[in-house]
Amino acid sequence: MAPRFARWLASTNDVTQGFLAAGGLPGLINLGGGLPAPELYPVEDLAEIAARVIRDHPQDCLGYGPVAGLPALRSALAARFAAPDRPLAADNVLITASGLQALDLLGKVLIDEGAEVAVQTPTYLGALDAFRTRMPAYRAVRMDVPDLDPGPLMAGAAFAYTVPNYSNPTGAQVPLALRQGLVAAAVATGTWLIDDDPYGSLFYDAAPLPSLRAFAPPDAPVVQVGTVSKELAPGLRLGWVIGPVRLIRALTMAKQGSDLCTSGLSQRIYLAALEAGLDARVGQAARALYRTRRDALAAAMERHLGHVLTWAVPEGGMFIWARGAVDTDQLALLAREEGVGVSPSSVFDPFGQDRGGLRLNFTLNPPEKLDEAARRLARALARMRGDEDER
Amino acid sequence: MAPRFARWLASTNDVTQGFLAAGGLPGLINLGGGLPAPELYPVEDLAEIAARVIRDHPQDCLGYGPVAGLPALRSALAARFAAPDRPLAADNVLITASGLQALDLLGKVLIDEGAEVAVQTPTYLGALDAFRTRMPAYRAVRMDVPDLDPGPLMAGAAFAYTVPNYSNPTGAQVPLALRQGLVAAAVATGTWLIDDDPYGSLFYDAAPLPSLRAFAPPDAPVVQVGTVSKELAPGLRLGWVIGPVRLIRALTMAKQGSDLCTSGLSQRIYLAALEAGLDARVGQAARALYRTRRDALAAAMERHLGHVLTWAVPEGGMFIWARGAVDTDQLALLAREEGVGVSPSSVFDPFGQDRGGLRLNFTLNPPEKLDEAARRLARALARMRGDEDER
Repeated sequence: MAPRFARWLASTNDVTQGFLAAGGLPGLINLGGGLPAPELYPVEDLAEIAARVIRDHPQDCLGYGPVAGLPALRSALAARFAAPDRPLAADNVLITASGLQALDLLGKVLIDEGAEVAVQTPTYLGALDAFRTRMPAYRAVRMDVPDLDPGPLMAGAAFAYTVPNYSNPTGAQVPLALRQGLVAAAVATGTWLIDDDPYGSLFYDAAPLPSLRAFAPPDAPVVQVGTVSKELAPGLRLGWVIGPVRLIRALTMAKQGSDLCTSGLSQRIYLAALEAGLDARVGQAARALYRTRRDALAAAMERHLGHVLTWAVPEGGMFIWARGAVDTDQLALLAREEGVGVSPSSVFDPFGQDRGGLRLNFTLNPPEKLDEAARRLARALARMRGDEDER
Repeated sequence: MAPRFARWLASTNDVTQGFLAAGGLPGLINLGGGLPAPELYPVEDLAEIAARVIRDHPQDCLGYGPVAGLPALRSALAARFAAPDRPLAADNVLITASGLQALDLLGKVLIDEGAEVAVQTPTYLGALDAFRTRMPAYRAVRMDVPDLDPGPLMAGAAFAYTVPNYSNPTGAQVPLALRQGLVAAAVATGTWLIDDDPYGSLFYDAAPLPSLRAFAPPDAPVVQVGTVSKELAPGLRLGWVIGPVRLIRALTMAKQGSDLCTSGLSQRIYLAALEAGLDARVGQAARALYRTRRDALAAAMERHLGHVLTWAVPEGGMFIWARGAVDTDQLALLAREEGVGVSPSSVFDPFGQDRGGLRLNFTLNPPEKLDEAARRLARALARMRGDEDER
C-alpha cells in the first residue's frame, strides 16, 4: 500500500515557493513576490547587536524560553501598541516566529474543518496557505463596496480576516467607516476579527488610518498581527499577536505544540534593535526608498501598459494592483518567458476564480529594472493580444 | 455570542509551560523538564559566529530564504547522515524551526481527523502536543515487549512514532531486532515510520544502536527527525527531517503555510558551528557532564528512594524513569510542595491513564542538587504513605 497524505494537500499550490526561488532564475526581474530591498538591512548594526545579546543574555538567546515569548519583549510590544484609553499588558501579547506563524496559530485555535471564514478578497496568499491545513470554507468579502454592512458576512463565521493597511495584493486601505463597522460587527456577532498589519509602517503619503483595535472596546474579539519582516529583517522570523488574554492563552497552547518557543536570539536582537531605535531608522529609509520605486513603477506602467491595464497608485505597502480584460494566469506565464515575474489574481482569490488582476511588487528592484519589467510585461501582453487577433 | 475555539483545545494541558516556567519558582529543584545544562552553551564561540555570518552572508541571515532551508545546510546534513550504501541528497532534507516543528509538520501532512497513529508508549509529551490539533486516535505500542510483532499495530495507521535512542520518558533503547521489525513492517504495510532522535549524541556507555534508516531500503517510508537543541543550543530553534523526496515535498508545502522559512541567521550559525566542529565539542562535553549527573541521580535515588521505586539506569538521554505502587499524579503535586519538580507518567500516556511512573531529569542540576531533590521526593513519598496509613 502506498503511504498516504492528509487530504488538504490535494488543494495546495507552490506559488510562494516559486516567488522565493525566482531570485535564482538568470535575468528574471522578480515583481512576483513581496520581498524587501536587501540594501535596507542594517547589517553592521545587527552583527554587533547579535554578538552583544548572546554575551549579555546567553540563557535567553541560547536556552529554551517561555512558550509565549520573553517577558521583556512582550512588555515592550504591549507598551508600543498601548494607547491611553486602550491599556495593554504583556499577557495580551504572544511572540511568534513570523506573522505567518501567527496566522497558522490563529487557524489552529479558531478553525474546525468546514468552519466558515470571512476573508477580505482578494487576499494574502500566505493566509490561505496558513489556513489550508484546517480546511475551512470561505466567504469572500469585497472591502471596496460602498456602504458594505459586514454584519451578515461575519455572523456565524469562525473569524474575519483583513489587511486594512495597504492590503496585499491591492495596496488599498480599508476605509475608516468600514473599519468601525467591522469592529462593531465583531462585537455584535462575537466573531473574531483579525487585523493583519505587516505594511502599516510603509506609508508614502499620509500615515495609515487607525488600526481596528483603536475602535474596539476592551476585551472585544479583535486581534492584531504584526511582523519585523518589513521594519527590520525577515530572516529573524519574528512576529506577534495582540489580543484578549483568553485568545493569547489558546494561541500559547497551539504554539507549545508548534515549535515550543520562538528563537530567543531573534527576540533579544529585536528587543535591542527597538531600544536602539533601529526599527524607526530602517522604517524611515524604507519609506523614502520605496516611495521613489512606487512612483517609478507607476510611471513605467503609464509608459508601457496604460493602454491595456488600469490601476490606482497605492498610498503604501509593496504592490501595485492592475486590472485588465486579459487572462492574467496566461499572462503571468508569458511574462515569465519574457523575463519578468508577476502574480496573477487567481492566487489571491480564495476560490481561485479571478483571472483579471495582476500584482506587481515595487520594493525589490531599482527604477531602471522596474521600467524594463514593465516593458517586458508589455511584450507579453502584446503576444497575448496577437494570439487573440489570430483566432 | 461568545467567540469560539477549535475543538482540540478542550483536550489540552499546560504541563510543558509548567516545565519551562518552573525555573522561576524560588527554591524549586526542577527535575520535571528536559532542559540542558546552560554551562554547556559555547557562548563566546556563538557570539563570534553570529556576528561573522551576518557580515559574510547578510542576505541568507536577514532576508527571506527558501521554504525548505538553505541549500548549503540541506547539503551539509545530507552529507552528515548519508552512508556508503544509503546516499542522501539535499532534497531528502527539510530544515525546520526545531524538532518539535518537524513533528507539527508531519502531523499536518499525515493526519486527517480520526486517523490512527501508533505511538511508542509511554511517549514524548511534545509529540502528543504537536499531533493534538489534528485530532488523531492513538494505538499504544509498548516497545519493551519481547518478540513484539509491530505489523498489526502499524497496518492501516497514518504513521508510527518512535524515539528509538534513549526514549523520552523511559531512557530505554528500542532493541535491535525490533528496529529491524519496525522498518520491515513499514515497508510491508506502507505506513510511515518516524524515528525521532534528539538524544542520539547523549550516550554515556556505548554509542547507540543503528538508526531505523540504516535498515531501510531506498525510498522506504522511514523518516528521521533531528534537532540542534541537545548538541548545541535550543535557543536557535533549529531541526530537520530526513526522508523520501515525496515526503519532503509535502512537508515543504506545510512549512510554507506554517512560517514560510526557518531563521536564516540560525541556519547560518549552525552551518558555521558544524564547520568549526563546535557541535562535536559540545557533544563530548555534554556526555562527560551528564554521565556524572546520571550516576549522581541514580546513587541519590538508591539512598533515598530505593525502598519504594524501581528503575533501570539508562545508557543515554536525559531521564531516569522510575516506577512504584503510588499514584504519581498525586506524588508530583506533593513533590512540588516539597520543592522538587517531577513529571508523572500520565502526561506521557496518549490515553492519560498511567499513574505508576515518574520521569526524573538529571542533566540540568549538579550532583548536590540531585541528592537534595531525591531527598525531597522521599519526603513527598513519606507523606503519601503516611496519608495512606491514616486511612
